[in-house]
Amino acid sequence: MRNAIYFQSGGPTQVINASFYGVIKGYLKHQDEIGILYGSRYGIEGIINDDLVVIEKDISIYEEIKKMNGAILGSARLKLKGLEDPKYAQILETFRKYDIGYVFVNGGNDSMDTADKLNKYFEQAGYDCIVIGIPKTIDNDLVNIDHTPGYGSASKYIVRTVMEVALDLQVYSKGRVTLMEMMGRDSGWLTACSAAANLYNLGPDLIYLPEVPFDMKKFLKDVKEVYDRKGYAFVCVSEALKNEKGEYVSSIGMVDVFGHQQLGSIGRFLEDVINQQLHIKTRSIELSLLQRASSHIQSNVDREEAISVGEKAVDFGVNHEVGMVTIVRESTTPYKVSYKLTPLKDVANAIKTIPLEWINEERNGVTQEMIDYVRPLIDESEIAIKSGNLFLKKEK
Amino acid sequence: MRNAIYFQSGGPTQVINASFYGVIKGYLKHQDEIGILYGSRYGIEGIINDDLVVIEKDISIYEEIKKMNGAILGSARLKLKGLEDPKYAQILETFRKYDIGYVFVNGGNDSMDTADKLNKYFEQAGYDCIVIGIPKTIDNDLVNIDHTPGYGSASKYIVRTVMEVALDLQVYSKGRVTLMEMMGRDSGWLTACSAAANLYNLGPDLIYLPEVPFDMKKFLKDVKEVYDRKGYAFVCVSEALKNEKGEYVSSIGMVDVFGHQQLGSIGRFLEDVINQQLHIKTRSIELSLLQRASSHIQSNVDREEAISVGEKAVDFGVNHEVGMVTIVRESTTPYKVSYKLTPLKDVANAIKTIPLEWINEERNGVTQEMIDYVRPLIDESEIAIKSGNLFLKKEK
Repeated sequence: MRNAIYFQSGGPTQVINASFYGVIKGYLKHQDEIGILYGSRYGIEGIINDDLVVIEKDISIYEEIKKMNGAILGSARLKLKGLEDPKYAQILETFRKYDIGYVFVNGGNDSMDTADKLNKYFEQAGYDCIVIGIPKTIDNDLVNIDHTPGYGSASKYIVRTVMEVALDLQVYSKGRVTLMEMMGRDSGWLTACSAAANLYNLGPDLIYLPEVPFDMKKFLKDVKEVYDRKGYAFVCVSEALKNEKGEYVSSIGMVDVFGHQQLGSIGRFLEDVINQQLHIKTRSIELSLLQRASSHIQSNVDREEAISVGEKAVDFGVNHEVGMVTIVRESTTPYKVSYKLTPLKDVANAIKTIPLEWINEERNGVTQEMIDYVRPLIDESEIAIKSGNLFLKKEK
Repeated sequence: MRNAIYFQSGGPTQVINASFYGVIKGYLKHQDEIGILYGSRYGIEGIINDDLVVIEKDISIYEEIKKMNGAILGSARLKLKGLEDPKYAQILETFRKYDIGYVFVNGGNDSMDTADKLNKYFEQAGYDCIVIGIPKTIDNDLVNIDHTPGYGSASKYIVRTVMEVALDLQVYSKGRVTLMEMMGRDSGWLTACSAAANLYNLGPDLIYLPEVPFDMKKFLKDVKEVYDRKGYAFVCVSEALKNEKGEYVSSIGMVDVFGHQQLGSIGRFLEDVINQQLHIKTRSIELSLLQRASSHIQSNVDREEAISVGEKAVDFGVNHEVGMVTIVRESTTPYKVSYKLTPLKDVANAIKTIPLEWINEERNGVTQEMIDYVRPLIDESEIAIKSGNLFLKKEK
């Protein structure tokens, strides 16, 4: 009976540890097929450095981790190069040493690239090992999956926070422009979900997404129009807004180890532009890593799905299938999903953006389709502020 | 039978509407003593402009507002000048028109100054009206009160967020410096509460408060020491840090209508200093108005106390007593409070800071007294992350 290894990869989320819990659950179900389950500390680094932990055969030890954000085993952003990278030999050495027959890679598209390369290397080396990807990213930018574990919790946090800030902004008779900046290196999913707050009349007035080119002139015109009409304006912006040349509007010219451009704060940048060009008092709020860390408002739907993709990964693995576990939405009302496998290479390095038809014609908001898409993921009845504002005029 | 008026003043909190709910509850209890309860829209502006709403005699209409942040009637930062200010005559005109015999002012120390001045003006004008202050501020800087309604909820939000961010920071084997900036114009209460997260080994490494002069050299030495030892550092800083000359470390030289200096972001400022002087990758997170808006994590203790101070205000009012309702801590274990009245003039414009003996000798953290003080206010069992980190080394 061969052993298995699990590792966490890339940025933490509110539910990556729930997927780890799911893997443990699956492992305990398949004790006749898998000997020992190892966890690798600090992602793939733990495999390279022989830094593993043995997972106990007692699920009760791990109950708490389902609701913990972070990445409890540690993670890494290490990028494997082509198959000539000497790290593969080190990985193979560890795998042989511990007789690993199954590896579960929990991460985003960069991690699925790692998983795909590992799979190819093992095939080439004649080493028998099943590679399974477990999806994870708050950004929701993986292809071949309805939505990624992590996105629901981040969206729940964002939608509720947007409603709360909207209430705060109604307090004074004369307000200002408030910008809220959301994460998403390549897609606007986290920014677009804010529109769901409009179901309770507590959403942003304007939303700007990286899926369409950012036009500063149009932006300033939009903001001024709302401010003049309401006495204040609430604007959600993606950190990754790009101009018509495809350049990031706010880039500090740095790149990370994957060669991705590192972004400055778009909120601070636009705050300055509005102050200077429109002479309206403006404030920006950057939700920063609170979007991925806010486990106190973890989505129940998201947690259960995160557990399921972990558990299904083991089911597929012992069935000798290779690929990434994917969530298929069978129905929105009632909300129902199923779990399948999709090829690693299809997910590796690909990016899913918001369909252009879900963005309004003015390019400063989203359509009902976007709201309908996100609604089942955010435990809406828990976060709704139903009474709106009983006493204040909506418009000045 | 004379009528009453209630207004909300200053910045919103998670529980100012709970105090409004308490006033309505008190009013319905005293229907034999008070005719109509009016709410003034946008704080005292609504009284000056004759913009009032009539509160219904049905508490069920208002159940939802207990859990809503913001200030549902609207608020104002209008500062009344000396008693020669023509606004007093306008206020008196409205009061005579509606036969107001009781006024409930829900706000912080600036608002208690307004309440105190109103009281003096009415006496001078021979107008019979009871003025009662209802305390409110997330900053916790009012004197003659154990803690202010609003502080408990803001602290609950901060303590939980600090724990979540601490989990997030443990994810990579090599980290960075993370600065978190808390509100508090004149006191460090919101920053200091972060130490409660250390009860679960998920607190900040360093805490800097405005109660003691900020020494940049010592700060950089502290940060470097922690970073070298742990591989990352988590630092909480108050927006209002001052140097030994009493100047704000980060001031943009603007003043608000009360003459208070407006502060730039201390987090961004210190981020730049650490980057430049220590050459360590640094990030700053500004909790901004989320500290006062996060009603989804409203403290139950705080909400109930906020309701009580509102209700007691009406009790004291119909008993013809004048002053601000105050919370007296009778006991910490078990936690027990009582409600009394304190003179408005004592609270007006005074500031309560953290006792120096609650700040450690190194001036980069707090003592157990500070933690014991805040613990009963934050629904600790709801927000605790008990398991800490099962797999990662605490120190590198």
